[in-house]
Amino acid sequence: MLSLDKIYHASFVLKEVIRCTDLIAAPQINPDSKIYLKTENLQITGSFKVRGAYYKISQLSDEEKAHGVIACSAGNHAQGVALGATKNGIKSLICLPAGAPISKVEATKRLGAEVCLVDGVYDDAYQKALQLKEEKGYTFVHPFDDENVIAGQGSIGLELLEQLPDAEAVIVPVGGGGLISGVAFALKTLRPNIKVYGVQAAGAPSMVQSVAHGSIERLPSVSTIADGIAVKEPGKNTFEYCKKYVDDIVTVTDDEISTAILSLIERQKLVAEGAGAVAVAAAMFDKVPITGKKTICLVSGGNIDVTILSRVINRGLVKSGRSYVLTVELADRPGELVGVTSILARTGANIISVHHERAGKTHDINACYLQVVLETRNQEHIDDIRQELMSAGYSVIS
Amino acid sequence: MLSLDKIYHASFVLKEVIRCTDLIAAPQINPDSKIYLKTENLQITGSFKVRGAYYKISQLSDEEKAHGVIACSAGNHAQGVALGATKNGIKSLICLPAGAPISKVEATKRLGAEVCLVDGVYDDAYQKALQLKEEKGYTFVHPFDDENVIAGQGSIGLELLEQLPDAEAVIVPVGGGGLISGVAFALKTLRPNIKVYGVQAAGAPSMVQSVAHGSIERLPSVSTIADGIAVKEPGKNTFEYCKKYVDDIVTVTDDEISTAILSLIERQKLVAEGAGAVAVAAAMFDKVPITGKKTICLVSGGNIDVTILSRVINRGLVKSGRSYVLTVELADRPGELVGVTSILARTGANIISVHHERAGKTHDINACYLQVVLETRNQEHIDDIRQELMSAGYSVIS
Repeated sequence: MLSLDKIYHASFVLKEVIRCTDLIAAPQINPDSKIYLKTENLQITGSFKVRGAYYKISQLSDEEKAHGVIACSAGNHAQGVALGATKNGIKSLICLPAGAPISKVEATKRLGAEVCLVDGVYDDAYQKALQLKEEKGYTFVHPFDDENVIAGQGSIGLELLEQLPDAEAVIVPVGGGGLISGVAFALKTLRPNIKVYGVQAAGAPSMVQSVAHGSIERLPSVSTIADGIAVKEPGKNTFEYCKKYVDDIVTVTDDEISTAILSLIERQKLVAEGAGAVAVAAAMFDKVPITGKKTICLVSGGNIDVTILSRVINRGLVKSGRSYVLTVELADRPGELVGVTSILARTGANIISVHHERAGKTHDINACYLQVVLETRNQEHIDDIRQELMSAGYSVIS
Repeated sequence: MLSLDKIYHASFVLKEVIRCTDLIAAPQINPDSKIYLKTENLQITGSFKVRGAYYKISQLSDEEKAHGVIACSAGNHAQGVALGATKNGIKSLICLPAGAPISKVEATKRLGAEVCLVDGVYDDAYQKALQLKEEKGYTFVHPFDDENVIAGQGSIGLELLEQLPDAEAVIVPVGGGGLISGVAFALKTLRPNIKVYGVQAAGAPSMVQSVAHGSIERLPSVSTIADGIAVKEPGKNTFEYCKKYVDDIVTVTDDEISTAILSLIERQKLVAEGAGAVAVAAAMFDKVPITGKKTICLVSGGNIDVTILSRVINRGLVKSGRSYVLTVELADRPGELVGVTSILARTGANIISVHHERAGKTHDINACYLQVVLETRNQEHIDDIRQELMSAGYSVIS
């Protein structure tokens, strides 16, 4: 059974290996509240997951330790278990689907785990892990539905009360529910008046639906850029804790998550993964009632693939008017390109790429298309450029 | 005169407004040393500059305060002075060249400054600031060559000794030299055995050259992505402090800086600007003798333009084999594209864009070019893809 005692014990045990991550004021996230960020993206391994994994492993019997542990994950849990096992001086085996990003496989190996690549998807790797557990006697470390794992994550709750004793609300990402179960249990037991809100991705609302319907439901599929919380089914324990201790669970869209990631980069100089940014997204887009309240957003992790990060940034540049794909219809005669580029130069737009083509769906057989990717300053700058081109007689398509 | 007393006083005064930023272990930056990062990119305003500016302003006489302060900067100093003045309850006017990024102008205004946009470049804005100072009686806040500004930056040195009392080396970015003067003075006065190294951008080595030649020199021009330290001429005071207290000053290239920025994002989940990453670049590329030593890299700021960040990331993706522009020569007949794309699909490469064109510099008049931008896993993945295409008889140009 989960207890405050156990969470304090986890906190004590964890002191030797984890960082007490900084709590950072971030007033610009939502000017109507007083927002603080708990920066678990700056935790060792880049995520809070090491807390639960390490504590769970530290509490195994000597015999269990001798057999080693096994887990199934392509993400933060894998790295948490790998480091937790290594720091406890025992073996770990992590089952991963064979298509997992090389960078995550390498990171897991670097932390001392043995890696078993399994053909297929996550569920195949999971079955393989269960099979190996039976055959070899490994202890299976569940990513969330385990009292000791939950107690480990709960240590964050104790840190929050030390760091901001008068916090009024805490917003926590929810995947399987291990993190919020531990944090909410600690907070509500010590300070019943504090509000605890959960956030799921709109494309993976398993806990939201299960709590709404009063029983655990399994989603047929999940789809979100917040892969760390793309969980189809809540845990039995975590479902109960969420019902009992969490005030509300809301969802945020992938677009809102992307905007939150970009804001954290630009304003707070912090890199968050999708799952790590959902609490911030909820605060930015007023999904929870925190007006005027001292509110902590838990930034749970920062392990975002750079390719994804690049897409998020590029999309953010387009949305905020700092990148623009201009399409102009030109008469097919010499000198047209210099006309357009002169105007672009005068307006201070920086050209990234140019594509000029004759064939196309123009209504005029003598016309061609010019597509230019531009670095711009903002939406007004784009409007100015379009206006100048139209004043000069060019046909701006988009 | 600079003194330890003054730095302790600055430290005391600053406690009410700035954050004591976290010191974070970052063993992966250079596995042969024990690297820690002082995260001044997480300082309020995103840079250490607020320390010197606030302390300088706090020490003005009541009469000086009544006139307000003026500064000339398009970057971190502007925001530092704006916040420093606002928190001291006085007016500030910041002169900026008219072409300064909107985001920086807005950030400066948001912190309470009045902004004066001056036609021309930095030097024009500087002349305008001096003129306004004469006319209106503002106090000019120099970005680095001022004892109180230097004392404010020196407060970082005191924090470092609290946070890592047995540090053996500290690596500090150098532009005009204000930061390293304060930090080196504090460190060397209290712990003469500690090593202090400075780092400049290879495209703006003003302090390196001046110290090497024994007298202050002005560079005709500077060019680097580390715009925060692109300074043409060291200060009179800072030049003397560097000669006396700094063990060595080295340079890093823009490529090395970009790699450091990307490493900080991927491994440490921290966003650094170019100037903020030079100390990390020096540690990564073995520019300073720190093998086996407990070494602190000062990450001085995180205010990087997202457009620049996007370029750094995209370049990093290409360099590390996670993005690849494939060019294939095809026979000009139906069915060729499906052949190539089938192979790409089979090898697990993700297509970002496709460009297919008949005209070109191919030697065969019946050939066309196919250019495909791919998301790849690493260099081996790229080699596999090229090999598969060549085995299938395609002519891979690049």
